[in-house]
Amino acid sequence: MTETVISSATKEVVIGFDRPFVMIGERINPTGRKLLAQEMKDGDFSRVEADAIAQVEAGAHMLDINAGIPLADEPALMAKAIMLVQSVTDVPLSIDSSIIEALEAGITAYEGKPLINSVTGEDEVLERVLPLVARSGAAVVAISNDETGISEDPDVRFTVAKKIVERAADHGIPAADVVVDPLVMPIGAMGTAGRQVFALVRRLRDELNVNTTCGASNVSFGLPNRHAITGTFLSMAIGAGMTSAIMNPMHAEVKRAVMGADVLAGHDPHCASWISEYRDPAAGGGARGARRGRSGRRRGATP
Amino acid sequence: MTETVISSATKEVVIGFDRPFVMIGERINPTGRKLLAQEMKDGDFSRVEADAIAQVEAGAHMLDINAGIPLADEPALMAKAIMLVQSVTDVPLSIDSSIIEALEAGITAYEGKPLINSVTGEDEVLERVLPLVARSGAAVVAISNDETGISEDPDVRFTVAKKIVERAADHGIPAADVVVDPLVMPIGAMGTAGRQVFALVRRLRDELNVNTTCGASNVSFGLPNRHAITGTFLSMAIGAGMTSAIMNPMHAEVKRAVMGADVLAGHDPHCASWISEYRDPAAGGGARGARRGRSGRRRGATP
Repeated sequence: MTETVISSATKEVVIGFDRPFVMIGERINPTGRKLLAQEMKDGDFSRVEADAIAQVEAGAHMLDINAGIPLADEPALMAKAIMLVQSVTDVPLSIDSSIIEALEAGITAYEGKPLINSVTGEDEVLERVLPLVARSGAAVVAISNDETGISEDPDVRFTVAKKIVERAADHGIPAADVVVDPLVMPIGAMGTAGRQVFALVRRLRDELNVNTTCGASNVSFGLPNRHAITGTFLSMAIGAGMTSAIMNPMHAEVKRAVMGADVLAGHDPHCASWISEYRDPAAGGGARGARRGRSGRRRGATP
Repeated sequence: MTETVISSATKEVVIGFDRPFVMIGERINPTGRKLLAQEMKDGDFSRVEADAIAQVEAGAHMLDINAGIPLADEPALMAKAIMLVQSVTDVPLSIDSSIIEALEAGITAYEGKPLINSVTGEDEVLERVLPLVARSGAAVVAISNDETGISEDPDVRFTVAKKIVERAADHGIPAADVVVDPLVMPIGAMGTAGRQVFALVRRLRDELNVNTTCGASNVSFGLPNRHAITGTFLSMAIGAGMTSAIMNPMHAEVKRAVMGADVLAGHDPHCASWISEYRDPAAGGGARGARRGRSGRRRGATP
């Protein structure tokens, strides 16, 4: 019954085995988004603001914030993005960088208990990131690769995850504050990618008692009708016990697959969230958003 | 590596652990279809014919045939439906009735090795249906309820399934020819319905080594946007190891959920079926049907 509590100044989100799946909005990430990267570099954060609001409206429980732009001052951009997003939404944030100074700048700018994304199993990374996680009382995403790269052997990935959880404990970080990312490869390139993740998620849950997350969109890279693959992957991952993902809740099919899986996993009592979201086909499944008074735009349901 | 082979006069379908999921078309069933029931009773089988062709075009690998109409001559209607459907499609059939005479009439009219749907764990039913299955060399759907009804306890349902498999063996029917239906209840009425089935499917596969099936549509009864729930259920059931279902492949969302789950379970090598079905968004995902030269109508993909 592991629960990972993440918080903003005013709001708590709990990632947990018997909880609704936690959707972490993926959009605020300049990787592969040239326009966003250029704007952020130029000090224009209007798109960051709009993406934050839109993702929360679409149902994101948390937002991932990444400011990784080559040749830019990433720590300064991260701090600015974190402050801005906190000013326009109240959801807890995931501070996403491979640069320790950017993580530090993000943590300094953040009010609450963030999710730090991420630490790998590489010794050097562990020894830089874990003290920061411990000092700030944060939770951390543990990516199951190490110096040897990403193994195709799920047993190796399990062992790396176990090592990170143990090393975190050495730093006083409880297993409940380590959210393991089993690493999702594109299914088009590796036909066993799905099965590996499902088996790994089950083991991580049953044997290490940890929550799990992943960058979900990666699974459908290169395939047609890819949101359907991403959504189906998430449904199956939830069936295997996955408890959160970094994903795009603005894709109706992806969100629907998550909400449907919550119903079928027994995490949506009386199907209340599902019914609230989809009962009015004419509203395009936007009933929940509409009741919040935020938006009347169509989303969520097929016509 | 259990494989259940079902055949028509010219075609074999294999339900198996490492095979693509077998979609058994559910539409030819007058239960709840007043117009179809009246037409069949009046000797008008035009809708049966149209439904058979449409379901196979939409991707059904097999068709379920049910002729259960109150106060009608069910054995005669069953025989007629079986003969007609065999004349317009070449897929193997599931002969679906709770009346032994209708099963017998269906078997007599059928060319090939059918799936007989169904036998329950009730002693009286077992002793009537199993000899028929053995005599005709058919495979059979085993429904995991007995004299005491449908238990909410998955352990009881497992025990009933085990009893049927053992009793079938006494009649010389191998476990590979028993396809267990774990019974899917509406999730809107019973919040644990999904989890129960997923756990049961895993046990049936791991401990009894049998293939599984279900009437999938039942899970979403009473809910809005129900095809999305049915599809999500099927994705998760495939993740748990289910190998076939009686379902409606004409619902694009349901079919997509099955095909996506086949990709993610590693049952669609090189994603070939997925790519073939969905690579051309303008064709609405009907590429496969279109290449068969059967239909240009839109189906399968979101715009």
